[in-house]
Amino acid sequence: MSSVKSDTPGTLIGSGRVALVLEYNGGRYHGWQSQKSGLPTVQQNLEIALSKVANHPVEVVCAGRTDAGVHASHQVIHFETSALRSQRSWVMGANANLPSDISVHWVGNVDESFHARFSAKNRRYRYVIYNNPIRPALYNKEVTWNYRPLDEKKMAFAAQCLIGEHDFSSFRAAGCQAKSPVRTVQFLEVKRFSDFIIIDIQANAFLHHMVRNIAGVLMAIGSGTMPETWAEEVLHAKDRSLGGVTAPPFGLYFIHVGYESGEIPMVELGPSFIKPYYVLSNSSV
Amino acid sequence: MSSVKSDTPGTLIGSGRVALVLEYNGGRYHGWQSQKSGLPTVQQNLEIALSKVANHPVEVVCAGRTDAGVHASHQVIHFETSALRSQRSWVMGANANLPSDISVHWVGNVDESFHARFSAKNRRYRYVIYNNPIRPALYNKEVTWNYRPLDEKKMAFAAQCLIGEHDFSSFRAAGCQAKSPVRTVQFLEVKRFSDFIIIDIQANAFLHHMVRNIAGVLMAIGSGTMPETWAEEVLHAKDRSLGGVTAPPFGLYFIHVGYESGEIPMVELGPSFIKPYYVLSNSSV
Repeated sequence: MSSVKSDTPGTLIGSGRVALVLEYNGGRYHGWQSQKSGLPTVQQNLEIALSKVANHPVEVVCAGRTDAGVHASHQVIHFETSALRSQRSWVMGANANLPSDISVHWVGNVDESFHARFSAKNRRYRYVIYNNPIRPALYNKEVTWNYRPLDEKKMAFAAQCLIGEHDFSSFRAAGCQAKSPVRTVQFLEVKRFSDFIIIDIQANAFLHHMVRNIAGVLMAIGSGTMPETWAEEVLHAKDRSLGGVTAPPFGLYFIHVGYESGEIPMVELGPSFIKPYYVLSNSSV
Repeated sequence: MSSVKSDTPGTLIGSGRVALVLEYNGGRYHGWQSQKSGLPTVQQNLEIALSKVANHPVEVVCAGRTDAGVHASHQVIHFETSALRSQRSWVMGANANLPSDISVHWVGNVDESFHARFSAKNRRYRYVIYNNPIRPALYNKEVTWNYRPLDEKKMAFAAQCLIGEHDFSSFRAAGCQAKSPVRTVQFLEVKRFSDFIIIDIQANAFLHHMVRNIAGVLMAIGSGTMPETWAEEVLHAKDRSLGGVTAPPFGLYFIHVGYESGEIPMVELGPSFIKPYYVLSNSSV
């Protein structure tokens, strides 16, 4: 939920490669990527809306393909267009043609060398657990509910072994198409704010289901079902079948993509409802 | 999102009049009240779930009938049952039989003289406005979006004339079934926290659409479309046709019911996502 960034009034955007920042609630969608089955996806809805604004068919490339039910407070895409419009026309035009759970925040011209996926240096996700004996009703598709009391200190301690460059085969979904299972986790923090536990993780890139598989292992450790040493055992096994359950998608938010250039404006890290907790705890957001 | 309150272990609840506290996201429902059309309502789902736990048909009476799309962090109901179950059986049993957007928080025996509606001394609602140029996607059915910059100080000033006992005919829906249009507003505060503006209102009781009609008038004043004196003009006109538009249901939360007796446990006021903002601002929650 950020604002339109200030831009020189009257600047026209288009006629080449354009980057775009969007937010979405993934609860209703079968993930990011358009599917042959025709089931609703975020990509499909965005391409329909942008094609209307551009007045020609638009195909988009995203920084991170999110799964069914996963949210994004900050997803980045790029596309090619021959159209030339004001920033306001792109943003407001797209939003007028998008469903209420997808919203474009920013549009800007980028160099032809910019690629939403390949230029990305790192991605950041937050996994939000609601830890309370009673099932939440109001935001039931925006958090992962865990009724077992979780010890966030155990989770944070166990998570340390995952930081750095490792073979994450044990945290990789069977259908993952990545060539290598090696990824570099740049940071991984676990914090509690009231009934919420946030797993905050940044890596150069992620394997399919990697964050949710890490969340599954850390929740089992937090509840005492498994010992603190289990995360390291799972990592070293390089075997998905030993890694426990994949945590549900509801609590997962794609919150940032890092590029070397300053082409994409900075945003406040989401999801918005946890921001004041970070302020209250004097943590870096 | 509160916890199960502590209760003497082994205490059985039922065999007479029982009160219950629940939370729901109204986004998917055609309001609280069961309808002849069979369209999904909160009451219908709750009665089905409680009938399964009680093993006999259950009819419930609520403290405040919310409209389609309106949420409740704290709704109170009562019902009669011949069944006798532990608190855990009632709460967990009901929740296992309820959809993910309705959740029971507490169940307890009450005196036969207790009536969820008629014993209520006051009701409290919060209306949550997301004030930003860009449409929110993540929590689009949990806030009311207003893209016009709103001056919350003007709104707070204008709202003062509505406090006290008044004829609220100008803020009453055409179909309202109440015998009298006179209500006593016990407090009415307007506060801004970052991009959120909260209208917090308590009255002995509310007319149909009263909070949303007040929110509509205050937003028109906040945006400068109407002068600050307009709220008082509308109130004195006692004519709904002069009262402007009814604000959308999405931002409206039923957050508390006051009873003279201490039969219903206190809860933290919702919705949960704005709680830390109150702490940050040192406001009374």
